[in-house]
Amino acid sequence: MEDRNKLKTDLSEIGEFGLIDILTKDLKSKNTSTVFGVGDDATLLRYRDKDILVSTDLLLEGVHFNLTYTPLKHLGYKAAIVNFSDIYAMNGRPKQITVSLGISSKLMLEDIKSIYEGIKLACEKYGVDIVGGDTSTSLTGLTISITVIGDPVGENAVFRNSAKENDLICVTGNLGSAYLGLQVLERERVLFEKGKGSLPSLEGYEYIVGRQLKPEARKDIIEALWEKEILPTSMIDISDGLTSELLHISKSSNCGCHIYSEKIPISEESAQTAEEFNMAALTAALNGGEDYELLFTVAIHKHEKIRQLKDVSVIGHIVKQEKGNKLITPDGQAVELQAQGWKHI
Amino acid sequence: MEDRNKLKTDLSEIGEFGLIDILTKDLKSKNTSTVFGVGDDATLLRYRDKDILVSTDLLLEGVHFNLTYTPLKHLGYKAAIVNFSDIYAMNGRPKQITVSLGISSKLMLEDIKSIYEGIKLACEKYGVDIVGGDTSTSLTGLTISITVIGDPVGENAVFRNSAKENDLICVTGNLGSAYLGLQVLERERVLFEKGKGSLPSLEGYEYIVGRQLKPEARKDIIEALWEKEILPTSMIDISDGLTSELLHISKSSNCGCHIYSEKIPISEESAQTAEEFNMAALTAALNGGEDYELLFTVAIHKHEKIRQLKDVSVIGHIVKQEKGNKLITPDGQAVELQAQGWKHI
Repeated sequence: MEDRNKLKTDLSEIGEFGLIDILTKDLKSKNTSTVFGVGDDATLLRYRDKDILVSTDLLLEGVHFNLTYTPLKHLGYKAAIVNFSDIYAMNGRPKQITVSLGISSKLMLEDIKSIYEGIKLACEKYGVDIVGGDTSTSLTGLTISITVIGDPVGENAVFRNSAKENDLICVTGNLGSAYLGLQVLERERVLFEKGKGSLPSLEGYEYIVGRQLKPEARKDIIEALWEKEILPTSMIDISDGLTSELLHISKSSNCGCHIYSEKIPISEESAQTAEEFNMAALTAALNGGEDYELLFTVAIHKHEKIRQLKDVSVIGHIVKQEKGNKLITPDGQAVELQAQGWKHI
Repeated sequence: MEDRNKLKTDLSEIGEFGLIDILTKDLKSKNTSTVFGVGDDATLLRYRDKDILVSTDLLLEGVHFNLTYTPLKHLGYKAAIVNFSDIYAMNGRPKQITVSLGISSKLMLEDIKSIYEGIKLACEKYGVDIVGGDTSTSLTGLTISITVIGDPVGENAVFRNSAKENDLICVTGNLGSAYLGLQVLERERVLFEKGKGSLPSLEGYEYIVGRQLKPEARKDIIEALWEKEILPTSMIDISDGLTSELLHISKSSNCGCHIYSEKIPISEESAQTAEEFNMAALTAALNGGEDYELLFTVAIHKHEKIRQLKDVSVIGHIVKQEKGNKLITPDGQAVELQAQGWKHI
């Protein structure tokens, strides 16, 4: 077999500044708020008629991604999307990102270019400028740290802490898909490593695997809410699983929530895959994470307007704090919602 | 020997959200531009009468710091300072930072609190708010990614690309100290690991070791320039060494530079230590890096005003591009300045 690295360029041949030049040479700004981007100690932005929103996410090899089954271009795309999603979740529009890369020695110039291509593709699609960053050697794994800057749609950012009793609880898209996609990828990785499968078989799982490897952020929903003049009373994106995010809203807003299990949107492929894994699809939807859908609340009188929105499900309502955070099953049982959250390994 | 970890708290006991609560519970905003900090998908900032500056730095264990001789509190302090320095280098004032941590399994709650104490100490001293971030398990080393936001002093950010022929080239403080401090720390580490020294002996090296482990950013100089109404024509901070930064200014400004070797400020302790290491102190000053001093150019008619500034040395002047980037030695020889820069390991 040919040595694939023969066709590739070692980063030591070009150095840090050479790498930065290659990665950033064709960057063009799409936003007027970007005054001066890459090429100095700091970026200069102009947001004089608007407040600004800032968010940041750190992605680490082995924790947030596994390079065995994650194409580098997809990884770059996802790294950008998860950041954009945080700005949409504030009822905002992402405008700029900075990209910091810690590059392990096994990666070549072409690999870094692939990551950057994915980031650029996401930026192109969502109208975001790359305005700065940092690159470094990493002695350990690949590290991607992105910070995103944007502004609220209209005048109003939407926080987690302002849900009110009787508000409707809404989610976009469907839940659990990204988690189930990950289970399929992990199964194929184990089989592959044991030599029991020559190439991963992902047929029939394209949708959920796509949700895991190349998620989208719900720009469309933020635009639709703006067009319909619906200002959510609270909003968050679903990165850690529906339950965890619902509890964030409840805690911040000093309220409780009741959601109905049969209202929670689950894709056909997710339902089938969950069955295959002997797992309740509902569990994946409640605790799975990485769907990057939006969870938001709206005043009850917006009910008719919400019904007209594509791809939005009403799954329950906000209640007084003392009524707790409950999942109501079809037979009327109320189960306490409990977060799984992040575990330190 | 007592198990030191017995006195410490495992992060798995408290989880991600518990950790965030502990680290951020006593944060108070010092800046009016901080509207909503930690606790939502994004931070809300208000800079309506000003442009904003954004910069980011990634610090990786084994590349940017060695935990063998870096106290965690110092590490946090330095991680914040190197970011502040980028904003000062734009003639700006840092106002907010986001802090992302990738936490390796060997670190306990108390360790993370020490890092955060250092970051908070720097923020307190420089008037900066911690407004967000991300925490994650790291399967490899400790990762610190900080993004800083600030605004220009007055109306004018100062870039690298606007130095003009005949401008004076100025540096603050002295150069090479941080690099020589690192050499001392490395020497003691090696002796310690070989069992030839029970405890590191840093006596007589306090100043240069301090410059390496706990650098400061030149807020004082930015304030003094403002008071004296001196607007530099270009500016950069010295993170990679004087030569590398000078070449950035020359390249961006389409000019050359001539600097005089005997004008380059070197501390007494640096000079002595360099001799001990059989190294030219000038080499450390030119290529050492991590001093976080400011390098800037001013119009020649500002000469008298510059002379009145404490801790600023005029080391040369800007020339036409075709005259090149030269170091002039006391005997009048002109040596081409060549960058060392970053090497991919």
